[in-house]
Amino acid sequence: MPYPYHKITEEDMAHLIRAVSRDRVCIGDEIPTEYYHDEMPEYGCYQPDIYIEAISKEEISAVMAYAYEHNIPVTARGAGTGLAGGATCRYGGIMLSLMRMNHIEDADTQNLTITAESGALLTDVADKAAAAGLFYPPDPGERTASIGGTVITNAGGMRAVRYGVTRDYVRCVEAVLPDGSIVEFSSNVAKNTTGYDIKDLIIGSEGTLCIVTKVTLRLIPAPNSTRTLVMTFSSIKPCIETVPKLLQTPYVPTAIEFLERELTDIVDRRLNKPFPVQEGSDFLIVMYDGSSVDEVDAACEMACEIAMEMNAIDVKICDSPERIGSVWSARAAILEGMKADSDAQEECDVVVPRARIADFVRAAQDIGRKYKIRVIVCGHAGDGNIHTEMLRNNLSDEEWKSNTRSCLKELYAKSKELGGQLSGEHGIGSGRLEFLEDFVGSRMYQLYQSVKLAFDDRLILNPGKIIEYK
Amino acid sequence: MPYPYHKITEEDMAHLIRAVSRDRVCIGDEIPTEYYHDEMPEYGCYQPDIYIEAISKEEISAVMAYAYEHNIPVTARGAGTGLAGGATCRYGGIMLSLMRMNHIEDADTQNLTITAESGALLTDVADKAAAAGLFYPPDPGERTASIGGTVITNAGGMRAVRYGVTRDYVRCVEAVLPDGSIVEFSSNVAKNTTGYDIKDLIIGSEGTLCIVTKVTLRLIPAPNSTRTLVMTFSSIKPCIETVPKLLQTPYVPTAIEFLERELTDIVDRRLNKPFPVQEGSDFLIVMYDGSSVDEVDAACEMACEIAMEMNAIDVKICDSPERIGSVWSARAAILEGMKADSDAQEECDVVVPRARIADFVRAAQDIGRKYKIRVIVCGHAGDGNIHTEMLRNNLSDEEWKSNTRSCLKELYAKSKELGGQLSGEHGIGSGRLEFLEDFVGSRMYQLYQSVKLAFDDRLILNPGKIIEYK
Repeated sequence: MPYPYHKITEEDMAHLIRAVSRDRVCIGDEIPTEYYHDEMPEYGCYQPDIYIEAISKEEISAVMAYAYEHNIPVTARGAGTGLAGGATCRYGGIMLSLMRMNHIEDADTQNLTITAESGALLTDVADKAAAAGLFYPPDPGERTASIGGTVITNAGGMRAVRYGVTRDYVRCVEAVLPDGSIVEFSSNVAKNTTGYDIKDLIIGSEGTLCIVTKVTLRLIPAPNSTRTLVMTFSSIKPCIETVPKLLQTPYVPTAIEFLERELTDIVDRRLNKPFPVQEGSDFLIVMYDGSSVDEVDAACEMACEIAMEMNAIDVKICDSPERIGSVWSARAAILEGMKADSDAQEECDVVVPRARIADFVRAAQDIGRKYKIRVIVCGHAGDGNIHTEMLRNNLSDEEWKSNTRSCLKELYAKSKELGGQLSGEHGIGSGRLEFLEDFVGSRMYQLYQSVKLAFDDRLILNPGKIIEYK
Repeated sequence: MPYPYHKITEEDMAHLIRAVSRDRVCIGDEIPTEYYHDEMPEYGCYQPDIYIEAISKEEISAVMAYAYEHNIPVTARGAGTGLAGGATCRYGGIMLSLMRMNHIEDADTQNLTITAESGALLTDVADKAAAAGLFYPPDPGERTASIGGTVITNAGGMRAVRYGVTRDYVRCVEAVLPDGSIVEFSSNVAKNTTGYDIKDLIIGSEGTLCIVTKVTLRLIPAPNSTRTLVMTFSSIKPCIETVPKLLQTPYVPTAIEFLERELTDIVDRRLNKPFPVQEGSDFLIVMYDGSSVDEVDAACEMACEIAMEMNAIDVKICDSPERIGSVWSARAAILEGMKADSDAQEECDVVVPRARIADFVRAAQDIGRKYKIRVIVCGHAGDGNIHTEMLRNNLSDEEWKSNTRSCLKELYAKSKELGGQLSGEHGIGSGRLEFLEDFVGSRMYQLYQSVKLAFDDRLILNPGKIIEYK
């Protein structure tokens, strides 16, 4: 326990219920078990003492002020779709759901922005932008994520190659600080050098510094043409080596995803989602979009030439919505397919310099073999964010636990050696916490702790995530 | 004085000289007066006690460790081209120049990045990228700025409309902390969710949190076509109202600059740089670039149609290097022209939501009249970053000081009312420090102070910039 937190009493419960409303509060066993964990229950299941669904920043402010005064831990939660064990009450206390705060304003077509409360779903925000002819590019696999959750975890996704990650679209964040203060970081402006850039520090801070209540996001004109190519190779080497070549043309791809046959087979077998390409062992899915058909055609033509020079077996150009849909729906089903194929999984989310992707992929396969873990490499090859999926095979509980841990340690060491990072888009949460200090070094870790204290001097916000006080 | 700093003694001097080398140290009156100030001497001239030109991060580490132990203030300095009084020794102590650390590595054509030491000039970094067929987009007016200076101030510039600001291109920062520790924030990766995003907090922190020694910057494929349009209007209203319309097309402009005739006349008269358009009173300079001539032509055609709908008197399309050069060289000469035209100037660098540009411009003109200050509005209309230039006219010293202060206070209040910010790209430094707390509110200011302390618990790094301890 990092801190002698106050254990919630009947009196606290009564006060908190008065601050909100009894019909938006669950206590003890009333709390559905789905709120004990996120999409990776492997990273921890913890029962909150009290679960509160807030409907306004003022309510959140009141809850925080009380928690601050009484030393009660608080964990904010969106849709619970995280993959790092982030939105879990590791030290009990209050779970504060933002899912009822889901209002989305109409897109601002003058400023090219959209403003939404944290609990709005990413998919609804993107749809509302699209209805105004505008485009919200960030596209992490999970579109039922809350928009606030995507900001607080700096969600990445497929389209980061061309468009960047969530951070690149956040104009303004409204938040509640641990002491209950309501603040705004930046405003609806395109540039800002007014004081420290707290907004960017908040983005990706996984609910440990403040609670995000509303965000204003930058939109861009919608591209009006898109194509998806599937490049098929007979081995991994030319497949991965094609990636930097695609990035060196004047046409920036929207996405470059790497998949092995083993993974497409799992998705086909378990979820009946056949991958529309039958030959070959290694695939790149490459997407281009742009403001004109000509531009996208020229990009595709150049990409095809590169693939052929790299000895691709074939390149399929998908331009019908159905065909494009079948490719991306197979890609999107990977996590679900793996869950169906193995009773336990672990995942490594490193990011490496794009030039080192092939080195990492080779090393990951060797490390997996060494620890008898079925390792499948896939992910966002275009931005160096490689997901190394680990499936249990026939390992005993003990072997699985010990071997995945050793395997992860080696994978992280390899990433560091190649100039990479511990996590590219899923974050630290609880799941990667034990590896962080080693990875970033003790001075940097100490800096993280100082930053945490600058916001949360009583350590009550989402304790036991990102950093730990021993 | 925020802190009882230690006054440098002979013994300290001797130690610091040993840590570096005598021929790279100036003491007392040996220090050229140009190092007392930046490009805005109005914001303060202060003599350093000792001026040191470092040649390595290890030297900087040694200097910082000594300063930390002995409580001596340290201000890092690049090319001294800032406009906020940032790189000045407000409390004396050590001025640490990074200008000898100017090595630039060859562009990394696999990762599309370039790595340079802090003292390298922006123009040299951009040239070296261009030599590899790549493009470094940030383009603040001052291309002789040091690259480290552009990162630590998050320099903006003209091309931010399409390409964003310096922040958007920083992959990795090597820095020395106040206690002398050498650290790296992030690495050469396209995405990162490993711990807190300290890198973005550092960017724009104006040398108050750490000393940046090396940066790795993202490059993009060079656009191979560019056009500049000059749109001429007979009044400010249709001119400014054209801006959001240009931003709503599928073609994102690279730059949209706004100029009044009064300013082009000053530049013509004082610097003999005639603006190539003689009629009209208000101008937009609009630049498009892209990966093909067709794309840029289509963008220009749409922009011309919009200008005509908005009753522009004329639109000139510049496509020869000479013609493009004459437009941009007049634009680039504004600061110099103003300095030649008035023995004193002040500047307001607010940024407002793009939809509110016209409101701010009108208000600025009214406020200027109220305080008898000659106010000329210009700047980066495409991103809402309006530079309100103030010239002295015939005001007495006292009137000028008091009136500019009152004028600035009203301009900042107006910006806040419109949802804008205090500074869009020039930063706070010394020059805007007195206005910051009022603007952001006391809770936010307190958060800035906590963040500062998290890095610099002895308050030795560039004291009296951004925040002040009273």
